[in-house]
Amino acid sequence: MFPLPPGSTIGILGGGQLGRMLALAAARLGFDVAILEPEEDSPASRVARATFIGPYDDPEALAALADASDVVTYEFENVPVGAADWLIRQGKPLFPPLRALETAQDRLYEKSLFRRLGIHTPDFIPVQSRDDLAEAVRAVGLPAVLKTRRLGYDGKGQIVLREPRDADAAWATLGGVPLILESFVPFVRELSVIAVRGRDGSEAFYPLVENHHQGGILRLSLAPAPGLAPDLQATGEEYARRVLSALGYVGVLAVELFEVATPRGRELWANEMAPRVHNSGHWTIEGARTSQFENHLRAILGMPLGPANPVGSSAMVNCIGAMPPLPGASAVEGAHVHDYGKRPRPGRKVGHITLRQSDPAALKPAIEAIQTLCAHAR
Amino acid sequence: MFPLPPGSTIGILGGGQLGRMLALAAARLGFDVAILEPEEDSPASRVARATFIGPYDDPEALAALADASDVVTYEFENVPVGAADWLIRQGKPLFPPLRALETAQDRLYEKSLFRRLGIHTPDFIPVQSRDDLAEAVRAVGLPAVLKTRRLGYDGKGQIVLREPRDADAAWATLGGVPLILESFVPFVRELSVIAVRGRDGSEAFYPLVENHHQGGILRLSLAPAPGLAPDLQATGEEYARRVLSALGYVGVLAVELFEVATPRGRELWANEMAPRVHNSGHWTIEGARTSQFENHLRAILGMPLGPANPVGSSAMVNCIGAMPPLPGASAVEGAHVHDYGKRPRPGRKVGHITLRQSDPAALKPAIEAIQTLCAHAR
Repeated sequence: MFPLPPGSTIGILGGGQLGRMLALAAARLGFDVAILEPEEDSPASRVARATFIGPYDDPEALAALADASDVVTYEFENVPVGAADWLIRQGKPLFPPLRALETAQDRLYEKSLFRRLGIHTPDFIPVQSRDDLAEAVRAVGLPAVLKTRRLGYDGKGQIVLREPRDADAAWATLGGVPLILESFVPFVRELSVIAVRGRDGSEAFYPLVENHHQGGILRLSLAPAPGLAPDLQATGEEYARRVLSALGYVGVLAVELFEVATPRGRELWANEMAPRVHNSGHWTIEGARTSQFENHLRAILGMPLGPANPVGSSAMVNCIGAMPPLPGASAVEGAHVHDYGKRPRPGRKVGHITLRQSDPAALKPAIEAIQTLCAHAR
Repeated sequence: MFPLPPGSTIGILGGGQLGRMLALAAARLGFDVAILEPEEDSPASRVARATFIGPYDDPEALAALADASDVVTYEFENVPVGAADWLIRQGKPLFPPLRALETAQDRLYEKSLFRRLGIHTPDFIPVQSRDDLAEAVRAVGLPAVLKTRRLGYDGKGQIVLREPRDADAAWATLGGVPLILESFVPFVRELSVIAVRGRDGSEAFYPLVENHHQGGILRLSLAPAPGLAPDLQATGEEYARRVLSALGYVGVLAVELFEVATPRGRELWANEMAPRVHNSGHWTIEGARTSQFENHLRAILGMPLGPANPVGSSAMVNCIGAMPPLPGASAVEGAHVHDYGKRPRPGRKVGHITLRQSDPAALKPAIEAIQTLCAHAR
């Protein structure tokens, strides 16, 4: 059955921008896409052959997706595990595997996996009660970050505790659902590694990326991460390799990392993982020999992976809230504008712009020009 | 009204691979696409937001397209002029302009325009009767090519006359519709120029491309055309510029050229033009700073054009009849596979593969590898 031939249909759970960019990559290779998505008029549905509207766990919508699809993937990690499991029990191949989805949905499972695999992480302790929290604060020390174990994204569902008295307010806000307290890591910078593993176990790793967040939302990625020591690139790849292998993974995986200055030298600590194409990998559309979207498809279709080498140096600027004017943004040297076709809304990722240059020094003025345009669009 | 903002809908007459690649370029920029196409399940319909099925001159289908679209373009030059004219009379902006469509649909108008603009062309004489043909053969000399004035493509509707007695058979095959006899040009090679003109009259020109046909069908394009003298690049651009300007053109225009060795040195002679994105410009998706598809959209949307500079050296191999196996083709160094999602059929363009390299010498083995794969796929 694998590799699936062109003309096959790829089912995608979720119709956001990640699904849209997967659909565009699929179209180039001659594959059709079917989407299951709760909302009408989603970014991916505009470029999909078929869209089924319904909750992810709606049996009818799921059955329609299964009927239409030769293989199923998902574009966000909060798809109900039950829905994914149902598809698998129908005999529908689903990648990345269920274990990856389950692990990524719970910060405790995720960090426990990292630890089990010898991957550095911040200290962490699960918190179920106000008493647990007090004890966790003593054990982990302050500052620390209290997070919901499930359903957090873009900085939502987490609170930094700087002093013991912050615990009450944090508990009042987040208490009642399973939580995790993590030690606060005074990192030098945030990085991520995008990795991909094929059905045959082959792997490819993109160069590590430097990420800049603001208000919990990714604003800017620089690829390859400027000035990264080669041993840290190797460490990042090794971390990803362990996770891929432990989960019998197929598809693209992102691991978010902190670069930390320790008495032993610079280290990488894993923060979290995403079992899907990732915002910090959008630069690969223009900036790498094979995009993360194409490589995710190649993996789940059972094809050989494409090379993950960078083409020049890239910066990816997220457009938050509203797109900058297209003529102005397009005119910036090296700019490639990606508009997700979403309505403007504060805090919403509505598009991104990739800047690619052969000379990394030439990126800075272009980034500033784009950021200025984006600031005025808000 | 112009530039049209993202979220606007671009109507396309025709749902083939050119429409598909326009739709993919539109999606990246945040535009939706609506297709009018006679056949179900066309390549473009799979990635379009809306598709209306019907003949191009069907009033209902045309009205539906007009309703759905903010601007209309076409992906092939044999769209009925009446249909395009109807859309314009409804107040719907349509580009490239009607005059370009009318001119390109008739080889006599086309060649007459070239001549009027001082663009070298082969000698030509219209032929309405068997007597006309005899006289034309005397005037133009042999060898010559008898062509239908309208509806020819991919080498269809033309016959080479090498001796006077070939005229009878040629007349028997083609006679009965308006014809044109053209002198046969002993060209050194075939080239093309892809040009684009914006609504504000700004222009951009891609480097001239070397084209290889077989059985009347484009098989291979090399971009930039290897070893082209700079003055011929300038001549090609000047030819295109005259046509763009004479027609008040908006969008991408392709002019097919012969490179001819004359006693005066190398010259370019124009063979025909296409008022649309063109097969010999497909390499621009990966091989140029801005693809022909994006620049066509920028033009018709009223945006500034993007730079047409090449990125490295590219070769484009057409896949005729059937696609080569995707894993093998993808594995060729520098290959970017484009599968149009069409059923295999002898002589049908079902996809293309662009090979891009920084060193043009590295293209040759990759081209051979792809051509071998394509030969076995047939």
